Amino acid sequence: MPLRLDRSATGFEADFAAFLATKREVSEDVDTVVRDIIARVREEGDAALIDYTRRFDRLDLSKTGIAVSEAEVDAAMAEVDADTLAALRFAHERITAHHARQMPQDDRYVDPVGVELGSRWTAVEAVGLYVPGGTASYPSSVLMNAVPARVAGVERIVMTVPSPDGQLNPLVLAAARLAGVSEIYRVGGAQAVAALAYGTETIAPVAKIVGPGNAYVAAAKRRVFGTVGIDMIAGPSEVLVIADGNNDPSWLAADLLAQAEHDAAAQSILITDDAGLADAVEAEVERQLARLPRGEMAAASWRDFGAIIIVADLADAVPLANRIAAEHLELAMDDAENYVEKIRNAGAVFLGRHTPEVIGDYVGGSNHVLPTARSARFSSGLSVLDFVKRTSLLKLGPEQLRLLAPAAIALARAENLDGHAASVAIRLNPES
Amino acid sequence: MPLRLDRSATGFEADFAAFLATKREVSEDVDTVVRDIIARVREEGDAALIDYTRRFDRLDLSKTGIAVSEAEVDAAMAEVDADTLAALRFAHERITAHHARQMPQDDRYVDPVGVELGSRWTAVEAVGLYVPGGTASYPSSVLMNAVPARVAGVERIVMTVPSPDGQLNPLVLAAARLAGVSEIYRVGGAQAVAALAYGTETIAPVAKIVGPGNAYVAAAKRRVFGTVGIDMIAGPSEVLVIADGNNDPSWLAADLLAQAEHDAAAQSILITDDAGLADAVEAEVERQLARLPRGEMAAASWRDFGAIIIVADLADAVPLANRIAAEHLELAMDDAENYVEKIRNAGAVFLGRHTPEVIGDYVGGSNHVLPTARSARFSSGLSVLDFVKRTSLLKLGPEQLRLLAPAAIALARAENLDGHAASVAIRLNPES
Repeated sequence: MPLRLDRSATGFEADFAAFLATKREVSEDVDTVVRDIIARVREEGDAALIDYTRRFDRLDLSKTGIAVSEAEVDAAMAEVDADTLAALRFAHERITAHHARQMPQDDRYVDPVGVELGSRWTAVEAVGLYVPGGTASYPSSVLMNAVPARVAGVERIVMTVPSPDGQLNPLVLAAARLAGVSEIYRVGGAQAVAALAYGTETIAPVAKIVGPGNAYVAAAKRRVFGTVGIDMIAGPSEVLVIADGNNDPSWLAADLLAQAEHDAAAQSILITDDAGLADAVEAEVERQLARLPRGEMAAASWRDFGAIIIVADLADAVPLANRIAAEHLELAMDDAENYVEKIRNAGAVFLGRHTPEVIGDYVGGSNHVLPTARSARFSSGLSVLDFVKRTSLLKLGPEQLRLLAPAAIALARAENLDGHAASVAIRLNPES
Repeated sequence: MPLRLDRSATGFEADFAAFLATKREVSEDVDTVVRDIIARVREEGDAALIDYTRRFDRLDLSKTGIAVSEAEVDAAMAEVDADTLAALRFAHERITAHHARQMPQDDRYVDPVGVELGSRWTAVEAVGLYVPGGTASYPSSVLMNAVPARVAGVERIVMTVPSPDGQLNPLVLAAARLAGVSEIYRVGGAQAVAALAYGTETIAPVAKIVGPGNAYVAAAKRRVFGTVGIDMIAGPSEVLVIADGNNDPSWLAADLLAQAEHDAAAQSILITDDAGLADAVEAEVERQLARLPRGEMAAASWRDFGAIIIVADLADAVPLANRIAAEHLELAMDDAENYVEKIRNAGAVFLGRHTPEVIGDYVGGSNHVLPTARSARFSSGLSVLDFVKRTSLLKLGPEQLRLLAPAAIALARAENLDGHAASVAIRLNPES
């Protein structure tokens, strides 16, 4: 049974605060292992990759090669059935079109006193894309990570993906081909992250690493951060559905379960002003769970982390939603358009009854890499901005320098940085 | 003596690679101490702040209060001399004008098939600004951190600053007042970071923490990351000057020393195609060092981390500069405008002989919080973007859902996420 809260009940605030504070992640202590793996890859390069892959993936890279060949990708493309490939292409086109709108504009201008200022955006030169192996090896995630990099103008997009027992998901290779991934290596885990950050004989280093992974991958990304950039460390996925009474309970139940089936630590929350609807949704969840292939996983998530919150009025849900700051927020109501204006913290909002969150996972066009665990309060989903960086430009002539110098010198002296003051003053009085 | 490299010498590549790999930071192992401090602040709140401040800052907060009062800030404003206050105001205006151009635009549109998509930017609700005490307590840094937050629309800007023996820098308080800081607390160190992240009776928690600090502050920021957002952990500052032969060596020497005086771990690098100029600059550095109040610091930095690289042609400096990816890059040459087009990795570029980097520290208008330690390869200086976050919006009607559904269902099934497929399918066939 999921948690059930009533906003009008005594003690709601304490219960809600405790709910918000619930940790959904088991933090495995893998840091020592990861430190050693990184050190060995830095020292031994390819040889370390070969050894770890033999041990962890039961695969001899000295026979297969570390790189996945173009011919292998060709074969994967041929192997994928036509409908799925068409769906991947459709998703790729929609994601590309949306992300093309995100490219930031350079800004170069002269201010009223003649100082030239500017902000210039350039692409990160090389990006590593980590793709998990096994059941979490999602072609949609390859598109969601590679497309913004490609749109940004990243020249080298380097994918690493473990191939346990030599198996690679042909759909993942197909997605990589569509998205313009430039190199693919069959390595995974902390060793792949180390190779991307520091390079080996075969893998040239990158400047930034993105993509999801298990506890070892996350720990490795944290460790190499600084040497390279990393994306956010994603936590378990979550959805918040805010629904009025005028909904088909089976639709809402399906949406809650789509989230819950990801992971036993995923979270599905329903807020409604209709207690009757809440009951109906709960019954529907049980009914649909029975026929869901990943029902056991979904049931655990719903039981341990699911929640239903009853409010007297949907307006009361706004502050709760802003505190939850959900990764995914569905507004299953008539006037979603006005309601969303009041929502401040959410990774992505799905407006109206005909926009299930799953559309955003695949073909909506927006990115499905979104801030989890309340981090939508301070961060954004993956976008083109994650693959570009800004350089400030400043240009003064002698006249502008004379104009700005007194204030710069005054502040430098106030901060006891006389060398700073001197570097300005010396240009005013070159003979000094 | 600084390192001296000649690009045409045998072994240059190995020497340059070793130079790039030089670590300039001593990583103090403070993590255990910091963990305990954070745990105690979470548990005991204000009482822990009072105890730590008594111990570390020799100040009794139970007498002074944790908050700095408006009257204290008024008094500080009155205490600052008129010229310095005018300089602060001048800087504040220029920084505000530049950052106002950085506010990203919302984007809402309907695509060719009628799907509504959008990117909506909202300000982070509350931001913590850490300001160091003692000699590193810079009013200019208060402006550089607070102004972009203010421009972004952050409602609560909460400043913490330690006051060793009860001393607060009046200029720091004045800068806070000018920049619109909403609350100021006289606490520092890991305990201040913990209070900002988790809150105490007096200090309400924030969603993001920015600002420089010592090893304890940096370790605390790393630890609370996830609960709140943080900015980059800044390393020692650095400047790269690329100069043709037609420069006054005393100007270049002054610029190199302005950087070197920051910190013994700061770094100043000169690349030139004129070995004679290099010699003259080196002699000038020695001459100016003698009269610099922070000469000992600057001398240590120049001796341990300074470098002069001779190239046959300034074009040869481009790939070196892009690998160095300096925080600050000065182009002391005639045609800086064309040269900068080839520069890809740099935090900020200062064009021409009349744009010393120090102008950017104070009054240029651009931000002086910039990526250090080669991180300009993958990250940007502080900007308004660091204080806003983007929410994706997606809205389909029944017709759009029918159009996108087949591809979404195909991909969901290909990923073995039948619950995902069901959440789309159930809307096509409600009676199922």
